[in-house]
Amino acid sequence: MRILVLGGDGYLGWPTALHLSQAGHDVAVADNFVRRQYDFELGVESLVPIESLQTRVSAWREHTGKDIAVYVGDLCDHDHTLGMLRDFRPEAVVHFAEQRAAPYSMIDRKHAVYTQVNNVVGTLNLLYAIAEVDRDIHLVKLGTMGEYGTPNIDIEEGWLEIEHNGRRDRVLYPKRPGSFYHLSKVHDSHNIEFTCRIWGLRATDLNQGVVYGQQTPETALDDRLATRFDYDAVFGTVLNRFVIQAVLGHPLTVYGGGGQRRGIIDIRDTVQCVQLACENPADRGEFRVFNQMTESMSVKEIAETVARCYPGDVTIENLENPRVELEGHYYNVTHTRLLDLGLSPHLLSDTLITSLFDVAKRHAHRVKTPALQPKVNWRDHASPVQET
Amino acid sequence: MRILVLGGDGYLGWPTALHLSQAGHDVAVADNFVRRQYDFELGVESLVPIESLQTRVSAWREHTGKDIAVYVGDLCDHDHTLGMLRDFRPEAVVHFAEQRAAPYSMIDRKHAVYTQVNNVVGTLNLLYAIAEVDRDIHLVKLGTMGEYGTPNIDIEEGWLEIEHNGRRDRVLYPKRPGSFYHLSKVHDSHNIEFTCRIWGLRATDLNQGVVYGQQTPETALDDRLATRFDYDAVFGTVLNRFVIQAVLGHPLTVYGGGGQRRGIIDIRDTVQCVQLACENPADRGEFRVFNQMTESMSVKEIAETVARCYPGDVTIENLENPRVELEGHYYNVTHTRLLDLGLSPHLLSDTLITSLFDVAKRHAHRVKTPALQPKVNWRDHASPVQET
Repeated sequence: MRILVLGGDGYLGWPTALHLSQAGHDVAVADNFVRRQYDFELGVESLVPIESLQTRVSAWREHTGKDIAVYVGDLCDHDHTLGMLRDFRPEAVVHFAEQRAAPYSMIDRKHAVYTQVNNVVGTLNLLYAIAEVDRDIHLVKLGTMGEYGTPNIDIEEGWLEIEHNGRRDRVLYPKRPGSFYHLSKVHDSHNIEFTCRIWGLRATDLNQGVVYGQQTPETALDDRLATRFDYDAVFGTVLNRFVIQAVLGHPLTVYGGGGQRRGIIDIRDTVQCVQLACENPADRGEFRVFNQMTESMSVKEIAETVARCYPGDVTIENLENPRVELEGHYYNVTHTRLLDLGLSPHLLSDTLITSLFDVAKRHAHRVKTPALQPKVNWRDHASPVQET
Repeated sequence: MRILVLGGDGYLGWPTALHLSQAGHDVAVADNFVRRQYDFELGVESLVPIESLQTRVSAWREHTGKDIAVYVGDLCDHDHTLGMLRDFRPEAVVHFAEQRAAPYSMIDRKHAVYTQVNNVVGTLNLLYAIAEVDRDIHLVKLGTMGEYGTPNIDIEEGWLEIEHNGRRDRVLYPKRPGSFYHLSKVHDSHNIEFTCRIWGLRATDLNQGVVYGQQTPETALDDRLATRFDYDAVFGTVLNRFVIQAVLGHPLTVYGGGGQRRGIIDIRDTVQCVQLACENPADRGEFRVFNQMTESMSVKEIAETVARCYPGDVTIENLENPRVELEGHYYNVTHTRLLDLGLSPHLLSDTLITSLFDVAKRHAHRVKTPALQPKVNWRDHASPVQET
């Protein structure tokens, strides 16, 4: 199958491209390297050094004999987006190419506007390009579990069977997200669903939980194939950040009481889920939503798990929560559709965490410790992140 | 009360500004005149000639002795938006300043992207400006009944009490809109609700039905105070368009079978509703939604009503529906909150329609008949409107 991975230079895009290539698909990646640009802006970098995309692709060819085509450009440049689809003629497009950090979107007005415009316009351009080039191209779009917020009812997979005043309907699941970034994904979902209705596009929206881990069988083949390991308070996801804090002998910084429950998923399951979605496409006109997570844990439980696994003393520090979010809340998520397609999950294990400690120890000298402290406050309309 | 009307040069913004001024409020209007620009782009103009904003404001002062301050600029220019709020220090901001035509947003990719970026960024800038200048400023935002689409359950006012698997919650009413324009308003609503949660802003989202009519007591004082009367297939609302077709002796063009039901409202009620919303502000942190409509009718019923009122022969022509929408569907809308605040509705009457015939007859020589035919097709990714 010909699969184009947008954002293929990123934390998950790159391992996904390798996984799909290893599985025998004809893969191309596209990126504009803006994720590397955010690092320059914030004065941080991946804990694990990452190679240029060109070197990564060469190393992959060296190990496997498999080619991955590269397109460089911005989805917001429609000539690029349309040209790429015309040139590669994919059967599926996996779309990771969005600004993906909630705190980044909450820095100030410019970052909020940038996040929403970049994500919404990139996706609109992609939808128009699919409508023009081939309406049968299956869009596999990365969304987030954060779109749902924390409702007091079960979270279903994108749609909700509802009874109200004695009448029934199947409606889009109501969303109440917690950042301008999460909102951008809600906007995308509404736009995509509409194009399935009017143009008969096929789409799978993957509402992904918080991803942890840094290695897949493919990235582990060679240091040059490594993906990012972000630990900073803006782009680092919570479990990865706790691992670094443990290794450095810092307290694990839990926001508030840590009672916030979140869906989580191992990076090896992410790449497996995307493969399953591509190989089992949505029908014409179908807007399909999968909750791409394998279990849920509270932030406090994640911290306690990391602390328990670490072979040394670890303390947990509760910081005033810089975000506006509920801390004690109901959280029960339906996530059976990817299991039905054959997902065999890697649940969070001591082995995985131990392997992350090893990665963190090897690169601990690269950590910029001020970057671990949250500086973006949801209650302010502007936060001074650049003063790090 | 100091009230700033954004989009105050437009079809509804201008009569609203006059109504609020007449009611004794200290009113300013802001506009960037892009609505007049769309006319140049499409080669059409308001059936009723409209004066420059400067002439309008002078004529109002001449008749009433009341001043209306004018700000010229684009909400997407944040320096302008912030500066205007700092200068005028409004207690309420009425926000009409968005691209408001579904067909315009469906012309092609550029118009879809323009509509969403213009509307979403303008509103984001406004939210940030309120957060910075004074979080107590009440935002009165024009949304649309079209955000809801046509669900098979009752449409409530913005929020829905729901029971699911034995648990209860109050959620944002699920939206499934029918154009990139309507989607832009859904995006706005999600963004606004979020800022009520994180910054404690006060907001009223007015989900307005299809507006008909062209005169209010204030605009009727002087020809120079007239507001727009759009009849073209892009910006003209359905009842106003049927009136012109009747006067010209053209068939009333109903899309499909005309079974689409819509909420409708008289322009005189629009201005009354906005006044009621301003004078009864939302609480701090409250995201309040009113369904701003007074009755619902099918497109077929609207056509039949216009045909019945017209003193002459009128035929109805069913065109292939250029939009993607359900034609026979359930439609039952709760709209009690504005009535509770004191709205006394003008339901659709023969008198109103007869007065519209008079307006249309007086200016019938100005009609460009090709503009009455729909050229924007929802099923195509690009429609050639400029070839009129």
